[in-house]
Amino acid sequence: MSGYFITLEGGEGAGKSSNMAWLAERLRAAGKTVLMTREPGGTPLAESIREVLLAPGDEAMADNTELLLVFAARAQHLAEKIRPALARGEWVLCDRFVDATWAYQGAGRGLDRDAIAALETLVVAANQPDMTILFDVPVDEGMARAGKRAALDRIEQEDRVFFERIRQCYLERAGQQPERFRVLDAAQSLERVRDQLGPLVEEMLAWQ
Amino acid sequence: MSGYFITLEGGEGAGKSSNMAWLAERLRAAGKTVLMTREPGGTPLAESIREVLLAPGDEAMADNTELLLVFAARAQHLAEKIRPALARGEWVLCDRFVDATWAYQGAGRGLDRDAIAALETLVVAANQPDMTILFDVPVDEGMARAGKRAALDRIEQEDRVFFERIRQCYLERAGQQPERFRVLDAAQSLERVRDQLGPLVEEMLAWQ
Repeated sequence: MSGYFITLEGGEGAGKSSNMAWLAERLRAAGKTVLMTREPGGTPLAESIREVLLAPGDEAMADNTELLLVFAARAQHLAEKIRPALARGEWVLCDRFVDATWAYQGAGRGLDRDAIAALETLVVAANQPDMTILFDVPVDEGMARAGKRAALDRIEQEDRVFFERIRQCYLERAGQQPERFRVLDAAQSLERVRDQLGPLVEEMLAWQ
Repeated sequence: MSGYFITLEGGEGAGKSSNMAWLAERLRAAGKTVLMTREPGGTPLAESIREVLLAPGDEAMADNTELLLVFAARAQHLAEKIRPALARGEWVLCDRFVDATWAYQGAGRGLDRDAIAALETLVVAANQPDMTILFDVPVDEGMARAGKRAALDRIEQEDRVFFERIRQCYLERAGQQPERFRVLDAAQSLERVRDQLGPLVEEMLAWQ
């Protein structure tokens, strides 16, 4: 028995977190056991790595440090939370996963793609998502939404061009892996986004 | 202008830290600017990674998590402290470096050697030490010395067989890379260990 692994991806202010609970509710209504989690983080130890990663500080974080911390948190999250839940037959919904590393550290920061690929092989191995839902939103719209929230963390303070590269990377990956990705137009109203999510839930439930 | 990079390696209770200050003093007496540092850690951010790595906790740390945290701290240490000091022409003395990863995570925990090699290429790149001094001590002797100190941290709590694998790995690496390694018999008295260190200092000063 193995469950299903669904990841939600997208830039700042794309509405991933606010739609995840709705998605979980739909799956639960269909009798599924659902685990909601997020990256970086997801276990106490991985969250402590997330704290190191996101805390604004005087010391500049080297690009490789950022990449390795992201994968360290992911390795822990997979070992202690995601793989055990899948082994119990549960549905795992995860806010960001390895595509976010390709987008943020790869396209955003320009880190070595061979290194990311090697770390992906080492850490993720066979645990690629069964479906990845990309909440796509134009950068200005996403930033305006994110700006409404409390103080921006270190990564959110990066500039607009950075977020444009991230969006393009997500769209490119979605185009290259259509069997796994489903792209939503997340610039629309919450109601319209849910209209797009509905058929995806039907698709998931047909897997069984 | 580039300085020199000296690493001190060895198991628990081998006397690395107590001999480093003496080594620094000898180099300073010869007019060198010396930076003393240690791994994992060496910068505030790397030390915060060290804390995550060494803190005893209820949550088991996955092997890959440990490996990635070690290299994340190392990437930061190299970028923010070691490389800048070498670029200023200083002598860097470092208590543990990448050989410790081969010994502790590779031989000790049996982590994937291809992964360690890939991370070493990514993170260490051209910054291999100019000289690595291995403080070799039989495991029982080293553990007895380390046991005299305060509470053992998580890694020190591992069993004897683990430390035996670590010692053999260090000796094997020293045998394979004689141009870089110098092996000291650290089971002897502090005075005798310093008798062995003296000629190494002469060798270093001849580099200039």
